[in-house]
Amino acid sequence: MIPAVIKAEPLTGAAFRPFGDVIQEEGIAPKLINRGTTLRFNDLAQLEALDDGRIGVSLFRAPATVSFPCPIPLVECHPLGSQAFFPCEATSFLIVVHHPAHIPEVAGLRAFITNGRQGVNYARGVWHAPLLSFAPASYIVIDRIGPGSNLREYTFPQGAVTVDC
Amino acid sequence: MIPAVIKAEPLTGAAFRPFGDVIQEEGIAPKLINRGTTLRFNDLAQLEALDDGRIGVSLFRAPATVSFPCPIPLVECHPLGSQAFFPCEATSFLIVVHHPAHIPEVAGLRAFITNGRQGVNYARGVWHAPLLSFAPASYIVIDRIGPGSNLREYTFPQGAVTVDC
Repeated sequence: MIPAVIKAEPLTGAAFRPFGDVIQEEGIAPKLINRGTTLRFNDLAQLEALDDGRIGVSLFRAPATVSFPCPIPLVECHPLGSQAFFPCEATSFLIVVHHPAHIPEVAGLRAFITNGRQGVNYARGVWHAPLLSFAPASYIVIDRIGPGSNLREYTFPQGAVTVDC
Repeated sequence: MIPAVIKAEPLTGAAFRPFGDVIQEEGIAPKLINRGTTLRFNDLAQLEALDDGRIGVSLFRAPATVSFPCPIPLVECHPLGSQAFFPCEATSFLIVVHHPAHIPEVAGLRAFITNGRQGVNYARGVWHAPLLSFAPASYIVIDRIGPGSNLREYTFPQGAVTVDC
């Protein structure tokens, strides 16, 4: 086994397109609302909740779990819905993703670093590392609430995957 | 006309119950997820999107619009869906609400101040002041995207309503 070192890229909407949505103001033409006082950057994520699910709002409180080089022991995916993350206090996080597949392959992994003012919405079935925050922080999470099994995990061989910047 | 001065209270889940949900970690027993590294404060808001709507995610960028005493010229409501706000950078905002009604009455208004780590979800039909931020800030907004008329506004007689702390 040759360990893979994946280089983390700055997160952009274009690069992340195969995996879901970047939730950010940059590049979006806002609407003026509230008598011109407020900018609305509208409809930034395609949320999904299948099989008697509904979209809900939760908060995740995460420790600082990232320093480079960062080992990635496993990824997970949600076959029944999308999952969006946005930091509550301008915190950067590390994203590791793989397009929907029965089994994720090391060669298909991509890694991105958010700029602190970005969130992401993982499309349904996209493999992703669990929340990897650069600082202890809370995140608002918008995902499917409902019955059924909506979590799959895949563990890589030990030491197989590392992300570096 | 005797102008009404409404005293703003600290926001709590119990006090806000008639108007929707407070989105916060406080008072919620979290689940441990991601192999025990992360706390999930689960399912904090009842989202609604009627009449061919769906729940979407947007960002609002608001100026600082609050200093006390704060005049409230008007309130609005969304008859077809809920609307949730959460600050992106630990910002407090002022909330002015009235239970669902054909016409809001000054005597039915309540005002709350968030602590910076709180969001709210206005239940469908709840009258509320447009976003009143204590500092220039962006907010993540989770509300109905869809066809039809989902905005009603009610303007109070000039000078009728003021909020103070």
